[in-house]
Amino acid sequence: MLMDLNADLGEGFGSWPMGDDSALLDVVTSANVACGFHAGDPSIMRRVTAQAVERGVAIGAHVGYADKAGFGRRFVDIEPDALRDEIVYQLGALDAFARIAGDRVRYVKPHGALYNTIGHHEAQAAAVVGAVADYDRTLPVLGLPGSAWLRLAAEAGLTVIHEAFADRAYTPEGTLVSRREAGSVLHDADEIAARCTAMATGRPITDSAGGELTVDAASICVHGDTPGAVGIARRVRAALEDAGVTLSPFGR
Amino acid sequence: MLMDLNADLGEGFGSWPMGDDSALLDVVTSANVACGFHAGDPSIMRRVTAQAVERGVAIGAHVGYADKAGFGRRFVDIEPDALRDEIVYQLGALDAFARIAGDRVRYVKPHGALYNTIGHHEAQAAAVVGAVADYDRTLPVLGLPGSAWLRLAAEAGLTVIHEAFADRAYTPEGTLVSRREAGSVLHDADEIAARCTAMATGRPITDSAGGELTVDAASICVHGDTPGAVGIARRVRAALEDAGVTLSPFGR
Amino acid sequence: MLMDLNADLGEGFGSWPMGDDSALLDVVTSANVACGFHAGDPSIMRRVTAQAVERGVAIGAHVGYADKAGFGRRFVDIEPDALRDEIVYQLGALDAFARIAGDRVRYVKPHGALYNTIGHHEAQAAAVVGAVADYDRTLPVLGLPGSAWLRLAAEAGLTVIHEAFADRAYTPEGTLVSRREAGSVLHDADEIAARCTAMATGRPITDSAGGELTVDAASICVHGDTPGAVGIARRVRAALEDAGVTLSPFGR
Amino acid sequence: MLMDLNADLGEGFGSWPMGDDSALLDVVTSANVACGFHAGDPSIMRRVTAQAVERGVAIGAHVGYADKAGFGRRFVDIEPDALRDEIVYQLGALDAFARIAGDRVRYVKPHGALYNTIGHHEAQAAAVVGAVADYDRTLPVLGLPGSAWLRLAAEAGLTVIHEAFADRAYTPEGTLVSRREAGSVLHDADEIAARCTAMATGRPITDSAGGELTVDAASICVHGDTPGAVGIARRVRAALEDAGVTLSPFGR
Repeated sequence: MLMDLNADLGEGFGSWPMGDDSALLDVVTSANVACGFHAGDPSIMRRVTAQAVERGVAIGAHVGYADKAGFGRRFVDIEPDALRDEIVYQLGALDAFARIAGDRVRYVKPHGALYNTIGHHEAQAAAVVGAVADYDRTLPVLGLPGSAWLRLAAEAGLTVIHEAFADRAYTPEGTLVSRREAGSVLHDADEIAARCTAMATGRPITDSAGGELTVDAASICVHGDTPGAVGIARRVRAALEDAGVTLSPFGR
Repeated sequence: MLMDLNADLGEGFGSWPMGDDSALLDVVTSANVACGFHAGDPSIMRRVTAQAVERGVAIGAHVGYADKAGFGRRFVDIEPDALRDEIVYQLGALDAFARIAGDRVRYVKPHGALYNTIGHHEAQAAAVVGAVADYDRTLPVLGLPGSAWLRLAAEAGLTVIHEAFADRAYTPEGTLVSRREAGSVLHDADEIAARCTAMATGRPITDSAGGELTVDAASICVHGDTPGAVGIARRVRAALEDAGVTLSPFGR
Repeated sequence: MLMDLNADLGEGFGSWPMGDDSALLDVVTSANVACGFHAGDPSIMRRVTAQAVERGVAIGAHVGYADKAGFGRRFVDIEPDALRDEIVYQLGALDAFARIAGDRVRYVKPHGALYNTIGHHEAQAAAVVGAVADYDRTLPVLGLPGSAWLRLAAEAGLTVIHEAFADRAYTPEGTLVSRREAGSVLHDADEIAARCTAMATGRPITDSAGGELTVDAASICVHGDTPGAVGIARRVRAALEDAGVTLSPFGR
Repeated sequence: MLMDLNADLGEGFGSWPMGDDSALLDVVTSANVACGFHAGDPSIMRRVTAQAVERGVAIGAHVGYADKAGFGRRFVDIEPDALRDEIVYQLGALDAFARIAGDRVRYVKPHGALYNTIGHHEAQAAAVVGAVADYDRTLPVLGLPGSAWLRLAAEAGLTVIHEAFADRAYTPEGTLVSRREAGSVLHDADEIAARCTAMATGRPITDSAGGELTVDAASICVHGDTPGAVGIARRVRAALEDAGVTLSPFGR
């Protein structure tokens, strides 16, 4: 039994830190590293990629809209060709640091509003797929089953990786319960850890209607932007290890 | 007899064009392509690198300070480590487009205030040298003989390429006459073309004191940011060809 | 008979010019001055406001999304409170230059994607209305009849000014024909001038179905971002003057 | 006996907080509010100005270089006219929020590298003075005695206010000991509080050579960017109040 744990890292900017990158790198096996568009800057990218390589953590390009003021959480109706080129730019920039650190970018996971948008926005999803295909078509892409993003990526011949969210409620159909609904986000560390263990060992979790749902995922997304979040991530990792799950970057 | 002609390209930004990249790419053999920090944007970078590869023009990284408002013409007293990382970021981003176009970044030439600063500012010069050495130590760097930039690059084992300026007056010592002095910039196309031909064929030019000066350069920098400038660049190219000089990217 | 002519000005950025502000200021009576978010910068704002005051041209705040890379032409799904504050920021900044020039901001006209969005997006329209009401509720707002923007502005007690577009086709219902349809934009200077004269003198124009449409507007928007556009604007002004229309900023 | 306490506030940006503005507003009498160039954004400016007015804290414009990546701590060799216009822009933007909150900008204090630069850089100092004189020549300016900034401001007829630094060592000449020297920054809360009390009550402090130095200041600058800093600021305030000093914005 193998499982990958991914989290967003390198989301500070200049004099403004965010999260505890160093602590989180001791927990996860894949680091979604901000590329300087929604967060991050060149020096942060250098430091985080170096730390990731030291610890055997895989480096992913956490590409986003060019929107530091909104932290990449605002949909931007950018022309698909311009979006494609912005993604290529970010991939190349992060890859430079990853290679200096002795590795390379290993996967792509879009951030925030871009992640949400390309779940359904065909033209923007195709643009991000096109960027990855242009840059390096051996790069796996991480996302939600059922998303336009993964469907178009698969059609383009890219390797798609399903991820699950450690702290989100699922509908009986296997989609995420909207954040606008009560109970959409789980907060209890034990419950989250138990749920992750179930997902990693092929057992069903309880969906939002009380039924059983088997979630197919090769990676679980945890959070690290608050001290509490890092604690939960540690709890998830410990529970997985206790259950005999080997934590490793997907594809290794 | 071989000579390279280099010029700055891709210096538009979004809806704001600058210069006639397409016309200039028919004249030069090396394109200093802006990397999105002082000018340029991802879509311009994609277009210019593709056009350059189509025409056999070598792609150089025209790295600069992160200063679109000042077009990279303002000295910024940035910490050397942060500067090094900003240069790496730009190199990686441009290289992504160059590789998609079927080639790769072939050399590095700093822009504007950064170019001027690292002529003498040891710490910033070392930072840019460090970035190139980190990213790809086979990349040649372009600059002025006597600059801290080329001296430190050579000490670091990088390949240094001397460039001359087509339209600038030279002192008897072989340095550029300051732009603040009268006569520092030449405007007559015939004079500029004759001077470039002399430099390319090993003959001396007239220095600012009226003496003879032999300029050692493997590349000549021409301008293209005005219609008149493109005309002068064409005139230089024609004169070189008439004199039997083969125009080709340096190092090929 | 009175008519105001408005156009977008001050849309350069740093070393990148756009349009011929000086020529256009001799034609229009109201200048929509970019505020540094989608275009413009502090020095351009100072220069354009000074020139406008010299020529008796009213200064309007051409507020937009914070998006220079997209020239404010991309919808941004910004939170309404953040949008409101960004508009206030732009109003204050432009007003500083208008007051230094001896006048003050006289009206507000949103730009590009923001203009289009608040035609129908209630929350963003309310945010812009809120910004104007907070900043100075005596400021008139310029827009299209039927827009959410003008409806909410009127409900908030602001003065609303209807504008017409010199070069756009109108439906029988009095709305603009979508740019995606053939014939939506007029190009013939004489036709545009005749149409503007009709609108200014209370006569009907021909709508897209061939019927007669009377357009109610206190201001006509002309363009100036190309040499041809300035020529058309001049033609419009001359035709209006020939028809006995007095050109003057609205509200004076 | 009156004394003003000033501190930098509103230095977050988007999703990145910095310091505890609310706690600090309970301690200081003047708030140097970032204007969106080196830090801050429109929504932070609205919130901080509103809170300041609620608590009777005077709002100052903490103007800086346009450099969020460097937090305004990097010297930028910007042309003086462009700097002047950038300062005007910031003044107008902040004043909009201050007026919405029911007050107005009450003084100007440059930030970081700009503050340090205009201590000696005549052209940039004159540019900032020019901006204040253009915008509102009744606005007092805050700075160090002996600086080019205050000298030129006084010559231009502006009201100059001397400030002292709570936690910095002074030379026998009354200038700050360079941060590069050991002992230049004080860390002991009691010592800092005692020193501020001396300055506020007209008694000498001990200079870096062990002699007595009387510091003439109408405002004392405290810090609030760390939890410890807020604690020291509270200690200073309490000590001043215990000594019978009335804390009040200067000029009231």
